[in-house]
Amino acid sequence: MRIYDIIKKKRDGYSLSTEEINYFVENYTNGNIPDYQASALLMAIYFNKMDKRETLDLTKAMINSGDTFDLSNINGIKVDKHSTGGVGDSVTLILGPMIAACGVPFVKMSGRGLGHTGGTLDKLESIKNFKVELSNDEFVRNTNDINISICSQTGNITPADKKLYALRDVTATVENLSLIAGSIMSKKLAIESDAIILDVKVGSGAFMKNIDDAISLANEMVDIGNSYGRKTIAIVTNMDEPLGKAIGNALEVKEAIETLQGNGPNDLYELCLKLGSKLLLLAKKVDKEEDGRNMLINVIKSGKAYEKLIELVQHQGGDISYVKDTDLLPKAKYIVEVKSKVEGYVKSIDAEEIGKAALYLGAGRETIESKLDLAVGIVLNKKVDDKVELGEVLAYIHLNNMEKAEEVERRLHEIYLIGDKNNAKKQLIYKEIE
Amino acid sequence: MRIYDIIKKKRDGYSLSTEEINYFVENYTNGNIPDYQASALLMAIYFNKMDKRETLDLTKAMINSGDTFDLSNINGIKVDKHSTGGVGDSVTLILGPMIAACGVPFVKMSGRGLGHTGGTLDKLESIKNFKVELSNDEFVRNTNDINISICSQTGNITPADKKLYALRDVTATVENLSLIAGSIMSKKLAIESDAIILDVKVGSGAFMKNIDDAISLANEMVDIGNSYGRKTIAIVTNMDEPLGKAIGNALEVKEAIETLQGNGPNDLYELCLKLGSKLLLLAKKVDKEEDGRNMLINVIKSGKAYEKLIELVQHQGGDISYVKDTDLLPKAKYIVEVKSKVEGYVKSIDAEEIGKAALYLGAGRETIESKLDLAVGIVLNKKVDDKVELGEVLAYIHLNNMEKAEEVERRLHEIYLIGDKNNAKKQLIYKEIE
Repeated sequence: MRIYDIIKKKRDGYSLSTEEINYFVENYTNGNIPDYQASALLMAIYFNKMDKRETLDLTKAMINSGDTFDLSNINGIKVDKHSTGGVGDSVTLILGPMIAACGVPFVKMSGRGLGHTGGTLDKLESIKNFKVELSNDEFVRNTNDINISICSQTGNITPADKKLYALRDVTATVENLSLIAGSIMSKKLAIESDAIILDVKVGSGAFMKNIDDAISLANEMVDIGNSYGRKTIAIVTNMDEPLGKAIGNALEVKEAIETLQGNGPNDLYELCLKLGSKLLLLAKKVDKEEDGRNMLINVIKSGKAYEKLIELVQHQGGDISYVKDTDLLPKAKYIVEVKSKVEGYVKSIDAEEIGKAALYLGAGRETIESKLDLAVGIVLNKKVDDKVELGEVLAYIHLNNMEKAEEVERRLHEIYLIGDKNNAKKQLIYKEIE
Repeated sequence: MRIYDIIKKKRDGYSLSTEEINYFVENYTNGNIPDYQASALLMAIYFNKMDKRETLDLTKAMINSGDTFDLSNINGIKVDKHSTGGVGDSVTLILGPMIAACGVPFVKMSGRGLGHTGGTLDKLESIKNFKVELSNDEFVRNTNDINISICSQTGNITPADKKLYALRDVTATVENLSLIAGSIMSKKLAIESDAIILDVKVGSGAFMKNIDDAISLANEMVDIGNSYGRKTIAIVTNMDEPLGKAIGNALEVKEAIETLQGNGPNDLYELCLKLGSKLLLLAKKVDKEEDGRNMLINVIKSGKAYEKLIELVQHQGGDISYVKDTDLLPKAKYIVEVKSKVEGYVKSIDAEEIGKAALYLGAGRETIESKLDLAVGIVLNKKVDDKVELGEVLAYIHLNNMEKAEEVERRLHEIYLIGDKNNAKKQLIYKEIE
């Protein structure tokens, strides 16, 4: 087998065989196939696409390129969750404890933030001493104890995906559904949960900018998951405006804690109820989604979900006083109010631009090497469809460097579009795919 | 300017600006842009193509990547010739002296053979001491003296093309008309002749396998040449069967000498008359093609063209006794006759397969490093449309290793398709493009 022939075959519009895909992934990962041939193949895939069988083969080959995270010693039906990335998305911090409080093991490997989107691991590190690195054994033990573990991707999980993603990122070959689905699903499937819920974000702050593409991606991923023998459901959700009100690491942890205490923003809470009730169905904890929803509302009302977060922090070495008293979380030196110069209704709040403003404040990473400021960020006071009076606060800027205040204020005035009431009410959930 | 944006732009179907093309060629040549980004761009060009302006810009950028070969000190209208490569194509060795004998300076940089196609430089080295490396000064002096010089590509001519071609060759991005045309024309235009004739081969032994593609390539190259201010004509010619009868280096030199003596194979001679009369028109030596043809026939009949070859060999240090007595040329130890097992008419002789058989004998290079055997090759006794009796000789195998005889004989029996007379007479010249 020669990589030249594989490139030419895909270039000419043919499907690659399982053997050819395995050959490529294996030999690219071990360095036998150079980057310049891999990138030519990726661009040919971009143009001629992969069919379902090829996409599944690619996913399997990437899983097989490294280790898998064995969870067979965890009791019960283990569930996992993935979001394709957005702004203000602290769902994992809320959903995980809710699910665990319902008695279902929630197993999650999370990532770091990059660009305008945040990462769960960074957020968790706002809590003093929280340990994100767990061995496979620790992970299994914790989950058996308290039904929840959240850790970083450890060891040699899907090295092929890591190498391929880095190459796609610099060769304009990211935007292909098969490659995106294969990348996400190989990482999800290498962690051996029993069921997976995928939150596919769509809108200005998300990777997918239009609903049709997001639905296609969701379908592709659900097919891969189910073909691989995992129960998989995807929910396509709105990321035109940020989720919740807080954007920034410690600010989102605070908001997550408030949500677990029953005082969270409506959209964030609703999304957790939707994803959670699907997970309870997948875990056979309930027979009807409605029952799942009620079970979840109950663990919020009873305080059990909030208690579960404290258990999680305790089991992973974190200081639980940070959860009990959110004033201990990293706090910015200054808070600047951004007041509306007009009156009307909020028509839109571009999520990507909000994310970039938070990034500029230091809440995110420009590159993998950037250092984060966990305290800074933006808290929205007004969200889309809200009525705004002249002089009312639109948002609060939390910052440690007052020199950035003017610029971020200027940007926020631009980002907040205020005018007549929108005709259609905003929608949180676009589609469910099972 | 960022190469990522250039890749994405071409991927998304837009034309690249002159500045973007210059940026890419410059920075790829000097190593600032890595191979893996260049190959992604090449694959995007393969799919989304380049328009005429982009192709001309690419060609210019590749010319500007290195030195040009200054011929301004050569008197008269200097003409150059290029063949896209075929089997048994010794046209340069015949056409050059014919043109020079008509008083028109013939300036040619030639190449080496690779794969199943031969190269003029290798053929010329069958003549003892023939020096293919000339400095720019020597080249100019020789041409002013005797109206002809043939040398190897010297110095730093189109380094961008060399680097890009090597990358295309291993990433399945060769077959794009703009990239092919840009590669050929940048090399032609870097040698500053006044007029160029392009022999675009089409058929089994050529790079272009179908006539429409060959015509498109010819049009593309003629447009580039003319846009660049050089008078350019292309002739699309048949390469379904080998040109002439000899395939192999010394064998082709012998055939070229015989053709200059008026005893060459008809197709080879006719092609030289066609290309030559166009060149004489371009050089304003004649006003009508017919007059050019007659002038060329005269220099053959008078022996002036043959004398010109002797002058060429003498000026480039070669031993002219090799031209005067072709028995001195490298000769194979053995000649094996391949006799027909049937009777009928030759329906086809696959030129590529003949070229590969000669390559197997040692007449060509498998890779750039392969060593040639100048003596070996194949001489066809029968060509397409010829009548064949049972037991008549189809071809002669010239070889130095008798162990290869059986295999080549077997192949030749397969290559020679013999049966009923073809309905249509074979055609040498398909189209002229000015």
